[in-house]
This record gives sequence, structure tokens and C-alpha cells, in this order.
Amino acid sequence: MGLANRSLVTIDDLSNAEIEALFSLADKMAVSLEKQFNLCQGKIMASLFFEPSTRTRLSFETAMHRLGGRVISAVNVGETSLAKGESVADMARVVGSYADIIVIRHPWEGAAKVVADYAGVPVINAGDGGHEHPTQTLCDLYTIKKEKKTIRGLRIALWGDLKYGRTVHSLAYALARFGATIHFRAASGLEMPDYVKRKLTTEYKGRLEEYETLDDVVKERPFPLDAIYLTPSSPHQLANIPSVSLQIELAKGVDALYVTRLQQERLNAEAEEKEMKNDYPVVDKKLLKKKEFRETVVLHPLPRVDELAYELDVDPRSMYFKQAELGVPIRMALIALLLGAKEIATPRKEESFTQPKEYALYQRETGVRCTNRQCVSAQKTEKGYIKPQFKIVSCRPLTLRCIYCDHEIFPPCIASSHWHEGRLVSKRYHSADSHMVRKIRPEHLMIFASAKDAEAHGFKPSSYAQPN
Amino acid sequence: MGLANRSLVTIDDLSNAEIEALFSLADKMAVSLEKQFNLCQGKIMASLFFEPSTRTRLSFETAMHRLGGRVISAVNVGETSLAKGESVADMARVVGSYADIIVIRHPWEGAAKVVADYAGVPVINAGDGGHEHPTQTLCDLYTIKKEKKTIRGLRIALWGDLKYGRTVHSLAYALARFGATIHFRAASGLEMPDYVKRKLTTEYKGRLEEYETLDDVVKERPFPLDAIYLTPSSPHQLANIPSVSLQIELAKGVDALYVTRLQQERLNAEAEEKEMKNDYPVVDKKLLKKKEFRETVVLHPLPRVDELAYELDVDPRSMYFKQAELGVPIRMALIALLLGAKEIATPRKEESFTQPKEYALYQRETGVRCTNRQCVSAQKTEKGYIKPQFKIVSCRPLTLRCIYCDHEIFPPCIASSHWHEGRLVSKRYHSADSHMVRKIRPEHLMIFASAKDAEAHGFKPSSYAQPN
Amino acid sequence: MGLANRSLVTIDDLSNAEIEALFSLADKMAVSLEKQFNLCQGKIMASLFFEPSTRTRLSFETAMHRLGGRVISAVNVGETSLAKGESVADMARVVGSYADIIVIRHPWEGAAKVVADYAGVPVINAGDGGHEHPTQTLCDLYTIKKEKKTIRGLRIALWGDLKYGRTVHSLAYALARFGATIHFRAASGLEMPDYVKRKLTTEYKGRLEEYETLDDVVKERPFPLDAIYLTPSSPHQLANIPSVSLQIELAKGVDALYVTRLQQERLNAEAEEKEMKNDYPVVDKKLLKKKEFRETVVLHPLPRVDELAYELDVDPRSMYFKQAELGVPIRMALIALLLGAKEIATPRKEESFTQPKEYALYQRETGVRCTNRQCVSAQKTEKGYIKPQFKIVSCRPLTLRCIYCDHEIFPPCIASSHWHEGRLVSKRYHSADSHMVRKIRPEHLMIFASAKDAEAHGFKPSSYAQPN
Repeated sequence: MGLANRSLVTIDDLSNAEIEALFSLADKMAVSLEKQFNLCQGKIMASLFFEPSTRTRLSFETAMHRLGGRVISAVNVGETSLAKGESVADMARVVGSYADIIVIRHPWEGAAKVVADYAGVPVINAGDGGHEHPTQTLCDLYTIKKEKKTIRGLRIALWGDLKYGRTVHSLAYALARFGATIHFRAASGLEMPDYVKRKLTTEYKGRLEEYETLDDVVKERPFPLDAIYLTPSSPHQLANIPSVSLQIELAKGVDALYVTRLQQERLNAEAEEKEMKNDYPVVDKKLLKKKEFRETVVLHPLPRVDELAYELDVDPRSMYFKQAELGVPIRMALIALLLGAKEIATPRKEESFTQPKEYALYQRETGVRCTNRQCVSAQKTEKGYIKPQFKIVSCRPLTLRCIYCDHEIFPPCIASSHWHEGRLVSKRYHSADSHMVRKIRPEHLMIFASAKDAEAHGFKPSSYAQPN
Repeated sequence: MGLANRSLVTIDDLSNAEIEALFSLADKMAVSLEKQFNLCQGKIMASLFFEPSTRTRLSFETAMHRLGGRVISAVNVGETSLAKGESVADMARVVGSYADIIVIRHPWEGAAKVVADYAGVPVINAGDGGHEHPTQTLCDLYTIKKEKKTIRGLRIALWGDLKYGRTVHSLAYALARFGATIHFRAASGLEMPDYVKRKLTTEYKGRLEEYETLDDVVKERPFPLDAIYLTPSSPHQLANIPSVSLQIELAKGVDALYVTRLQQERLNAEAEEKEMKNDYPVVDKKLLKKKEFRETVVLHPLPRVDELAYELDVDPRSMYFKQAELGVPIRMALIALLLGAKEIATPRKEESFTQPKEYALYQRETGVRCTNRQCVSAQKTEKGYIKPQFKIVSCRPLTLRCIYCDHEIFPPCIASSHWHEGRLVSKRYHSADSHMVRKIRPEHLMIFASAKDAEAHGFKPSSYAQPN
Repeated sequence: MGLANRSLVTIDDLSNAEIEALFSLADKMAVSLEKQFNLCQGKIMASLFFEPSTRTRLSFETAMHRLGGRVISAVNVGETSLAKGESVADMARVVGSYADIIVIRHPWEGAAKVVADYAGVPVINAGDGGHEHPTQTLCDLYTIKKEKKTIRGLRIALWGDLKYGRTVHSLAYALARFGATIHFRAASGLEMPDYVKRKLTTEYKGRLEEYETLDDVVKERPFPLDAIYLTPSSPHQLANIPSVSLQIELAKGVDALYVTRLQQERLNAEAEEKEMKNDYPVVDKKLLKKKEFRETVVLHPLPRVDELAYELDVDPRSMYFKQAELGVPIRMALIALLLGAKEIATPRKEESFTQPKEYALYQRETGVRCTNRQCVSAQKTEKGYIKPQFKIVSCRPLTLRCIYCDHEIFPPCIASSHWHEGRLVSKRYHSADSHMVRKIRPEHLMIFASAKDAEAHGFKPSSYAQPN
């Protein structure tokens, strides 16, 4: 399947083979940036930034201009049409009737998906709240691959704000898909969220070892680890690794160090910010002198604040400016592919260790809603047309993943739409913890946000209504 | 006369024949949007938005890009050069020396006319306060015409905020000019302003029937009417229509329903907003099921808030997204014509029911000023060079229409510059209500904003100085 | 040396011959603006405005579009990436990897130099705080030259805000370089800063006569002068001019009058603003009737406020709109040259009366810092990588000029790094006022911001430590 007319909302929208083909095209374009000027003549890209981001926006706009296309641009849109109460879907339909492709950054998680659903033209997610930022991930991967020739089997450390930094979430998934081992080193209080870790282990099938800061294994390291994600691509690692062999593994050093800044704008209060800053890991000359980092390339999505010392700028291992530079050919390749101005060769056999999982979808209107306040489905202007929908990603505990923002909820009560048909007396609800969750067939499953909710729908507690 | 080098400040700047020719050109362009790419190569459009409006701006910029031209763009300019105290005229002259055509949106009513007066290049009004927004009107008309093949004789309902919605003012004039019958259904407190109604009846020669909400004729309708404008194009309607025949007329249904949102940003206080919202008419599936609406196309200038239900989006009668889409070829055609890149065929015989009226102009500096606080001529930075000017649109009562914002004033006192020449004793002023207003020849007419004002100019009250 | 790949940070970055060659190219381009459309096809200009300036930005963007190039644009960037704490250097490196040329406006003085140092592509300073705005100066000079055929020997008056108006600083230097005589007429409290006057007399070798407002020589003039800068190009003026001959000189009239507005945004308080406004010189019809102004062209960088009457707009001597218009071909020529799309003929023999002075550089880290709070080197985000550097422009008193913002500081203490080598007892510091400043060889000079500072570096006061 070609890429023309598709959208890139999350990194999972591209297969590994497609990503590799995209990289090859970017390679070709980077060689002669100026010869791509006829590829998208007459095409228009809408660049819609509801959140400030000069760097990402200019990178996309540069890419489109280098392809010969035109750009219409709306910056800080939050202050304009939103103030008039317009919905994301309406905006998408209107702009989709102007432009040939849309690039969207939005503070609401899942907004890019809504735009893609309604625009009628290819849409690229340039960051939706704390959710995803897939083109940044492409740039990150591309830079690592150019430097290290492959991703597979690499040891890659993610440092800093692993909680709010959306770039590290997408990157972690992508690294897992390409078979890298990941070392997590979070600033305290900014650890990788549970749902990301769950996705890594359940969908990409690797193994996650978590540590206390004072664990013997990790406390002596130049940097204390929170966790290590062991890719299934190195089969021996699938065995339960004793401390000793982990020591050996760690001693091999780090191939790439991905540093992120503190996402101050997403912290709640000044107090919180202050505390975070004190404990934030700093990458500098001294650190890079340690033998584990001898051949480590340093990446950073920029802008940096204090976590990355200026003295490293002249170090040949520093890749962060190159990373920004490579964003242009990557985005050129992506835009050209989505617009159908270029086609990629038939993907070779998939090398991914995971096939995208197909989960059952829960779409009933039983009052279950995403509880993420930043989710697009939770917004006043969007509720009128967005129906909550979830993937049922686990039954024990019952876990629903919002199809918009990927946040997970754990509803307490369930029922079957089948058993009670016509017979009021058998309208019973059960605890989602009970074994009933497996007895009800997916197409009959009803899920409630609370017992009260279930009762409002006319259900009475069954003997399995109490959590066990 | 061709359109090259002309400006579009109000919808009246185009004759009916020119509008129809513009529509034909838009038809041709819409067929092959991508083949227009050479028309305006090397031309530059300045897109100056002193008020937020992502949608309209992007539509214009898309149009220029599809023509192969370039765009320089200033958004939220209100916060930049205006802060330095620059006048609209200076801005117009400077930008006019950069660009080949200017698109301007400005909060001051009449600002687009000032830009057109000073820029030296064609200017398109993209909305000046609550005054006019002629390209929106062109899109509205064009959409109706494409769906219904003609405007003449159609029954078109205007709903919602008829007071602050500038798009409905321009549209009402245009519909009258093309011979449509208009049904007004205002939210309470947001009725069509008097000056618009006056213009409709005096200049476009139709007849306006106004109703109380509880009138028998209208209260049973699916929607209560405020007023109906009967076009002179259906001659029988010119007769005094008894309730019965109006009933028959109404039973014929509505060809197009034009819905507008509450212009919250122009309301004075939150309290006012709250009240308005409660009574605002809502268009939904249920309404459109009524037989009067069976073949009604639904239009809306967007953005919508709650007045138009999302459930209608899939209804084939919904035209609002198509309306936005058609804005691009309409604006392409307009830009190409004003830049002289295209010419229109010689207009056929005018089909308008009205020829633009030629009113006498009042230009004396006797202290009469426009009382509209949003008028460009009333602004501190503009007073230094803008001289108040008015059209004398009526003598009974004496009515002056500001040439900038079209608002009307009713000055109380007049005098003649002729009778008293040299003889102080005969310097007398009269009430504007008296028959003297018809005795003084237009070229001698002096008009004062108050008796005090007249006296300050050395006049004494005549025996006709009291209003009768 | 060609201009390709060079930057324009201050007007001194161009030699007189280069400026004249640039003017010739602008002349050619102005004749056929539309034929330049192929010169910069495929090139991208980044237009980065950290301070609002619609006019200048649109002028640059127009220029690039007329050359066929593309523009990526970031307006009010201050509110975006800066909020994330990014440094100017990082921003420059990233944008420099996207675009082929950068135009930067920034509130910090010296910021454009930092961008030029790091971007890796040509950079044009579009105004850095109150420091320089060299392309405005080029437009000013170009307009005068087009009207008067030459700059040499002209009498040019600078009026208004000579303190905060960065355009008049650059212009004064340029006029001096081209051999004009300058009449200063500042609004009270807004006199030309000392460092500008010092530069005029020391580097451009002219002579500055300063006056009290009530001096006989100047008080009878249509406008009271603060000072007159006599160019060395008219040799007789180098003699000490008695009042009488100055009278004669002044009677010759003014060739050009350069008016500036009050830079309200740089004033500290409302009170200050009010006071300034009362005394601000106004240029109007009445003034221009005086015989000294009979052939005076009137210039203004715009926007104007009240200092320039609208009644002058129709006067053929008014050049301010033409000045804005000529900005486009000037900027086209400049961009084309820096991008190497055009080359200038080998400069003729330099006609400048001054060769750029080569000052010794002071780069030691002895705690001496620029005291200008607007200097880029003084900003929190920039201190991490910018090392203070100064030109030693005078020894008596010891004067250091910041290489970023050109502000001057007068450090009180000095020492020699040579004399005390190894011998702690001879580590002595001296007053910068003493003759020691001339005895220490530049390469050994150590400079301290205070006696305390010197002592902190281990020096003790010498017998020359007290200022004499």
C-alpha cells in the first residue's frame, strides 16, 4: 500500500518497512535539496499551530517550500477562531477544502486524529498535547540510524523528563519496534508513565526491568537507571537476567543518549518546577568522558535549557543540531509521499518484532468517558459530535484505551446486553474484576463508569458486583 | 468597464452583471483549480488582518497561491504598528508600495474604504467591523445560485443575529438587487438595523412587511418572522398583501435558509450574551423535516456555535462546508480580475432592479460628524486627515449617511450659505424638520449637529428653528 | 571581495564603495521589479521578528518574493520559543540549517551579531533594540542620494528623538562616512547619546560644535540646534569656526530634514512620555515655507505620530513614502548580493573619509561586563556561552566598547599580567586614569570593573591606584 492520501497521526501509522523507505527517500533528497523544487508545485500545505512552536513549524514550512509547494499558515490560532467557539472538526473540514495537506499542532490530545478524520486530505500530527509528535520521532530515529547504520540491537538511553516529554513516548515505541534496548533515566517525579511502559511490554513484547535508585546494580553507574527495556531482538535477554549479567550488559556502554528538557509549560505550579529543576540530570563534558559514553551520540529535540551544556556543542558526538537539520529532508520525504508526489518501493518483508495489535473496540454510549482532561473528546466544543470510543486492551484489570489520546481507564462495572433481553429481572451488572468479564462476549459487553451509572441504566448488582 | 485596478469595498462596488461574470469565471476556475497557477506569477498580495479571522484569511491566501502569486501577511496587526500610533492611510500607502493588491480586515467601520482611497493598488474588504464583508456575500450568493440556478424570485430566510452579523447586511442588499424575497427571523434583540431596512426599501424598491411575534399570520409558522422583504421582481407582490395571500406566499416554503451565529464578540456585556443565547433559534433535523424546508438549502458563514446542529452535516441540503470551499474559486476569480490577469466579457444588459442611487454629497466642515463610535472617521489617529463626508439620503427627516461606515445621522439644524452672504443679520438657522430643508439648494446647504453648533458658527434661530 | 555569504549587522559591515555598488544594483532592479523573479528561485529567507514591526518585515518579505524566493516567517517570536528558554545562538543554528538567509529583529542589542556568528548563513540585522538598523539607513541614504545626486557636502538635519531612535544613529555614522554635515535638533531630553557623538568625532574625524539652546548663533534659527557635525570633507570647516561663519553656513539652508517619532515604547514611564510630547518638534507647512527649507527633502522612517503634519503629504519635497517604497529594491539588491545571486563590480577606489579603525580587543575573563541591560551578553539565557569582549577605543579615559551592542564602559582599575608573573608581591593594580594605562602593553592589559574586583583576583593597590 502506498502512502499517498494517508495521514500520520501516531508513529504506529507507519510500518517499519515504510519508515525505512521514507528514510531512503530522505537520503536521496538530502543529497540535492535544491532539485526537489518541482515535486509539489501548485500544492498547498496548511500549517495550523494552536500551540507555539516556531522550530517545528519552520521545519515543516521549509520542507514544503523546498518541494516547491506553497504554505498557508495560522499561528497561535488558539487566540483566534477557537475564541469564536469553533470545533476542531469544523476547522478541519474548512481548511481541508482549501489545502492539499494539513500540518496540525494542538494542545488537546487526540486533536490530530479528529483533524485527520474530518479534513478529507492527508494530515500530519505536529504534536497533540502530551500525546504524540511522530515526525520528531522520525527525525530522532533517522539521525541515530545515519550515525549507527542500524537501530536494531542498539543500547539507547532516554534522559530527563520522561513523563511530559511527548517526544520520548513516541520514540520509545519506535525504538522498541526496531529492536533497540532502552535505558530509562528519569528526573525524579518525571518517570515514564505506566501506560507507556505497559504498551512497551505488551505490544512490543520486550521485558522491562525496574530499579530503585539504590539498587546495587544501578547505583554505581555514572547515571542511576529507573528501568531498562530489553528488546526481544536479543533472545538471550528474554531469560530472567540476574544482576550480574545486567552489569555486563550495562558495561557495554550506550550507543545514543537522548536528552530532553523539563517541559516547564506542562508543570502545574512554580513550586513543582523548582523542585524538578534541582534534581534534573545534566549532560556535560565530564559525563561524556566516562567510558560508557565513549561512542555515544547525543541527541536532544531542542530547545534545551540547562540540561545540555554548551561546551558539548563542538564535540563530534553531539548530534542535536544535525537532528534539527535532518528534520527538513525527513519532512520533505514525508510530505512528498503523502501528497503522492513520490512513491516508495514495495516494502521489503516486515522486520518489526510486533505486528500492530488488533483490539476489540468499545463504542456503546453507556456513559464511559475518557478521564484525561486534555483529551479532545473531553472538550466542551467537541462533545457535541465526538463519541467516546475505546480499545479494550486488557480484561484483567479491564482496561480501555481511548482511541483519541491513548490514555487508559479502568471502569469498575460491566454487564451483558445479551442475557437480559426483554427480561428486566435479569438486568444485572458485575464487577469488572470478576470472571464475568471473560464470560460476556465482546459484542455484548456493556461497561459503566460507576455502579451508580450502571443502576441509572436500569441494572442491579449481581453477586459478582463487588470487586474481589 | 473592466475590473482591473478597481477595489471591492462594498458589494455595491460591483454591478449585477459584473457579479454574474465573476461567477462564470469562478465556475471555470473551479473546474481546474490547478491550471490557474500561471495567472498571477510574480504578483504579491498583502493580507492585512487587524482582527482575527483565520478562515477568511486562509481562503484569500489559498486563492492567491492557487493563482501562482505570492502573499505577505500581517496577522493581529492591531497589536503591532497600531500600537505605534500609525494611521490607516499611512499604512495603506506604505503597503501599497510593496504589494500589487491588498486584502484588509479591520475592526473600524469604513477602514477598508480609507485603505482603498490611499493604497494606490486594488483593495479587497475582508470585513470592516460590523459594516460589510462583500466577498462573503459573493460566496453566499454563488453557493445559492449554484444550487438553485438563479437568485431571482427565490424565497430566502435570514436567521439569527441580524443586528451585528455584517454578512447578513451585505447579503440582504445583494439578494434584493438580484430580486429575491427575504424572510427575516431575528433572535430577539438582534433585529435587522433600521438603516439596513431603510436601504432595502428605498434603494432596492422592495416592500417590507413587519410583524409582531404574535401576529396571526406568522405565529403558527415553524418559525416566527419579524419581517418579510418582498422583491419588486414579482410584480403582484407590490400590491398591499392581505394576510391571506401572505399565508399562501409563506406556504410555498423557503429556498434557502441562511443561519448566523451570535456575534458574541460584539455584544457589550456578559449579561447581554446570556440573555441572547437563551432565545437563539436553532436549526436541526427536526426543523428541516417540516414541509416548508423540504427543498431548503442551509447556509452558514461559519464558524457555528450551537445554532446549527452537527446532525445536519450529513444532510444533502447542508451547504455550509461547500460554501467555504467555493470561497476559494470566487476569491481566485476576484483577485485575477482586479489584478487584470483576467478580463470579463462585456456585461450583458443590467438585470438589477435598482441602479445605484446618486445622492448629493455633504462635505462642509460645519461640525457634523459621524456618531458611530466604530467609524474610522471617529478614531483619534484618523481624525487628522479624514474629513467627514455624508450622502444626503433623505430630506424628511434630514438623513445623512456617512460615506465611510454607512451609518445614518439626523442632524437637527440647517442654514443656507447663500442667503446671508455678507449680511450678518440674515444669518439664520432652521430646524431640519421644517420645509426649509427643501428650499435651500443642495450646494448652499449647511448642516449643524446642534443649535449650539449653529450658533457657534454665527447663526441665530429663525422662526423655523423649532422642530415641528 | 564580493558580498556573497557575508552578513549585514551594522552599517560599518559595508564599505562606502560597496554601498554605492548596492545602490546601482537597486537602481537597475527598481526599473524592472518584475524581471527579477528568477534570481532567487528555490532560496528560502527566514524572517524572524522577536519584536513587532509589520512594515520592515513586509518590506523584506516583499523583496524576497520579488526575487522569486520563499519566506518562512516567525512573528512575535518573543512569545514562543523564548518562553521555553532557548538561547539566541541555538535558535540561529537551527534556523540556519533550514534557511539560506536570515533576517532578524530582536529587542536585545547585539542579538543580530550573535545570530550572524552562529547561523552559518548570511544574516541581516532588521533592528536590534536601540542599537542599529542598517537597512533602514541604506534606504535613507539611497533616497537622499536619488534626490540630491550625492551625499557629499550636503547639509542634513536630524530631528526629534535622537536618543532612542536607532535609525538616526546608524544614519549619522553613514552620513559622516559619506562626507555630509549634520545638524542635530533633538527634542529636549532626547539628545544624541555621548557614545554616538564620540564615534562621530573620533572615527569619522569630523568636528562637533555643541550649543546651548539660548546661544546667539542658534536661537534665532527656525529651529534651535543642539549641535552641528562638520564633515572633514569641506576642509575650511576644520578650522575653528567663529559664530559669524557658522551663521553663514547655516544660512545656506538644509538639503534634507530627517524627522523621527518619539520612541514611546522605549520610554520608562508615562510621566516621561507626557513631558517629551509637549516639547517635540513638529514639521509642518509653515516650517517648510522658511527659506532655509526651500529645497529641503523631508524624510521619516515611519510610522509617524504627530511630528509630521498630514498637510505635507502632497508637498513634492516629502519623501517619506518614497523612502518606504525604495526599501524594496534596496532590500532586493542586498538579499541578491548576500545570496550570491548577483555580484557587484569591483569597488572603485574607496571614497570614505575614514577607514574602519582597528582597535585592540579585550577578551580576558576578569569580570568586566557590558553594563547595558539590553545587551545580548547580559541576558540570562545567553551568559552561558557568550564571553564578554570589548574594543579598547580610548585610553584616556580608558574606554571599552562592547563588541555586541557598542555601548561603552569606563572601568576604573587595570593591571599587567606580565610584570607580576610568578611574583605575588608585584601583583599590583592601578587606576585606569593613571599613566600606567599607556605603559602596559595591550597583550598584557588586565581590566577590572572595580577595585574590589581587582583584589578578588589577588591584586593589591599600587601607588597609582587612586584616580587622579
